[in-house]
Amino acid sequence: MNIIEIIEKKKNSKVLTYEEIEFAVMGFVKGEVKDYQMSSLLMAIVINGMNEQETIDLTDIMIKSGEVVDLSKIEGVVVDKHSTGGVGDKTSLILIPLVASLGVKVAKMSGRGLGHTGGTIDKLESIEGFKVSLTDEEFINQVNNVGCAIISQTKNIVPADKLMYSLRDVTGTVDSIPLIASSIMSKKIASGASIIVIDVKVGNGALMKNIDDAIKLSRLMIKIGKKYSRRVICVLSNMEEPLGKNVGNGLEVVEAVDTLKGQGPSDLNNLVLTLGSIMVSSALDITEEEAKLKLLENIKNGKAYNKFEEMVEAQGGNINNISLEKNVVSIKSSKDGFVKAIDTESLGNIARKIKAGRLNKDDIIDYGVGIKLNKKIGDYLFENEELLKLYCKNTDISINEILSCFTIVPEKVMKPTLIYKIIK
Amino acid sequence: MNIIEIIEKKKNSKVLTYEEIEFAVMGFVKGEVKDYQMSSLLMAIVINGMNEQETIDLTDIMIKSGEVVDLSKIEGVVVDKHSTGGVGDKTSLILIPLVASLGVKVAKMSGRGLGHTGGTIDKLESIEGFKVSLTDEEFINQVNNVGCAIISQTKNIVPADKLMYSLRDVTGTVDSIPLIASSIMSKKIASGASIIVIDVKVGNGALMKNIDDAIKLSRLMIKIGKKYSRRVICVLSNMEEPLGKNVGNGLEVVEAVDTLKGQGPSDLNNLVLTLGSIMVSSALDITEEEAKLKLLENIKNGKAYNKFEEMVEAQGGNINNISLEKNVVSIKSSKDGFVKAIDTESLGNIARKIKAGRLNKDDIIDYGVGIKLNKKIGDYLFENEELLKLYCKNTDISINEILSCFTIVPEKVMKPTLIYKIIK
Repeated sequence: MNIIEIIEKKKNSKVLTYEEIEFAVMGFVKGEVKDYQMSSLLMAIVINGMNEQETIDLTDIMIKSGEVVDLSKIEGVVVDKHSTGGVGDKTSLILIPLVASLGVKVAKMSGRGLGHTGGTIDKLESIEGFKVSLTDEEFINQVNNVGCAIISQTKNIVPADKLMYSLRDVTGTVDSIPLIASSIMSKKIASGASIIVIDVKVGNGALMKNIDDAIKLSRLMIKIGKKYSRRVICVLSNMEEPLGKNVGNGLEVVEAVDTLKGQGPSDLNNLVLTLGSIMVSSALDITEEEAKLKLLENIKNGKAYNKFEEMVEAQGGNINNISLEKNVVSIKSSKDGFVKAIDTESLGNIARKIKAGRLNKDDIIDYGVGIKLNKKIGDYLFENEELLKLYCKNTDISINEILSCFTIVPEKVMKPTLIYKIIK
Repeated sequence: MNIIEIIEKKKNSKVLTYEEIEFAVMGFVKGEVKDYQMSSLLMAIVINGMNEQETIDLTDIMIKSGEVVDLSKIEGVVVDKHSTGGVGDKTSLILIPLVASLGVKVAKMSGRGLGHTGGTIDKLESIEGFKVSLTDEEFINQVNNVGCAIISQTKNIVPADKLMYSLRDVTGTVDSIPLIASSIMSKKIASGASIIVIDVKVGNGALMKNIDDAIKLSRLMIKIGKKYSRRVICVLSNMEEPLGKNVGNGLEVVEAVDTLKGQGPSDLNNLVLTLGSIMVSSALDITEEEAKLKLLENIKNGKAYNKFEEMVEAQGGNINNISLEKNVVSIKSSKDGFVKAIDTESLGNIARKIKAGRLNKDDIIDYGVGIKLNKKIGDYLFENEELLKLYCKNTDISINEILSCFTIVPEKVMKPTLIYKIIK
């Protein structure tokens, strides 16, 4: 077996065996297969695809490239949650303590983002003192005592994915359903939870641009989960506009706190309740309606927010000290009308440019910067009314560049659908 | 412009602009585009193709990556010859002095091989003392005085191709008609000749496995030539068996000498006359029939071989000292029958394994080793009759591995066609 024969097989649209995929992936991890060979193979996979068995095999090989977390010392069912990523997605910050406030154990390992804004871990680091690295023992103890923990993924979980993902990111080989499915599922399976709820974002601010692809990805992930006796539930949700109103690490923590207190924006609130109901009903074996009522109750009675505070304190954070930039610029509309569309990806890129996110792996995030939307799709605004607030010191971004992300029309526009589909 | 956008464009089967191809190729030459990005782009090109304009643009950019040789100081029309490569292809060694013996100037730059056996340059180096590196001035003087010269391609000719080719070789991205066309044509155009005859090999021992692909490649190369006012003539010839009988550097020089003296095998002899007639008729503006008669005459009267000797002496070589391995093993047939097929690629790989060729760029060739075929397709042989001689000291190759390259059948087999098509 040699890597060139394997590359040529996939180039010619042939199906790869387990042994061939293993030879390529493990050879790459060991440095025997070179990065330029792996990127050539990845491009062949992106264009010619992989069938279900190849994707399951790839996932298995990736899981075996590292350690699998043993969560057996946590009492009760452990649930996990993942999002395929979008602009303004702070769902985990709310969902994890909310669900845990009902006694459902959540052991979440999260990544840093190479996207428009930071990942969940970067967001939590905008809280002064918050410790994102715990030992396995500390992690398990916290989940047992507090009910939840969010930590940064350790180096030993799926090292193959880390290496492959950073290569995919710079070689135009990200958008492949089999590669995305195996990347997500290998990490989720290695992280140990038995119930995994995945928020599959769909739209111009997401990796999946259309619902058909999102359905394909979801079905594939559910199938992979079954192989490992994990229950996977996929929620396809709208990413045609940022989620909630705040984009940027510190700003998103603030919005998460508001939502935990029952004062969040309606789309974010609804998404959290949808995902939360599924997680709680699966874990406690009650109906989703019953679960939702319990969640609403814990938001109202303060238990949800208290659980968040408890988790932050357990991990050394000071919730009263969240980074926020003091210099705020108000961006006003140049005309009357309804917001018809938001170019979410471009808006995300603006957030990234003002350093809310990373362009390269070594970039340093400014936790305080970001965007606070005043209007979303379907909202009306007058000429000179505030469209958004820009939290940043000084910037090369022109006002026109920001305004051009918004399509404003005279005729009335409907609020978009938030949840497209739930696939179990 | 950035390289990821360019890769993604080709991934999505879009047409690249001149500026985009230039950004990728020149960025790669400068080291700004990384090898893993170039290999990803190359794979996208191999799978999704390039149209005619993209191929012409790529060729132009590659030519401009280095120097263009100025042959204006050579008097008269200068012709060049190229082969897409095959097993036992020693045509250039015969053709160049033969054509030059009729007063047609041939200035040939040649490569070293990373194939089954060495390239023309490696073959010439099996002659004791032969100097393959001349300065531009020495090269031009020799062509003016002797009428021909074969030297190794200088570093300054199409550096982009050198870099890209060595990457393609290890990333499974060799077999692409646009990439092959631009690689060959950029070097031929930068080498300066105005008439270029290309021997496009077709068959199981060649890069082009079928005639349709060979025709496509030929038409594309002719079109590229026209853009630079070069006359390109393509001869599609058989590579379903080795050319001639000898495979291996020193052995091939010996066979070239025999052919120049009129004692060569018929297929090699016919190919040389076909290619030579085209070169001479184009350069001297006579018919191909007239050219062929002149070539036959110069083989008969010894002028062709004398020109070869003159060239070898001018470049410091001693034709009486050609490396040949003394240890010779006779491989005999295990049954009676006609040779129906020869797995030319596998036989070539055997030659490579005994060190007639290189597997890696730094491998050292043994000029003396090789294979001398006693039988070719259509020939009859008895059980225990000699099929071939293996020139090598000791080897891991089993006799069965060698015999399995030959299909021997009881029924009579026709001699294969040598020249499939000539495209002008």
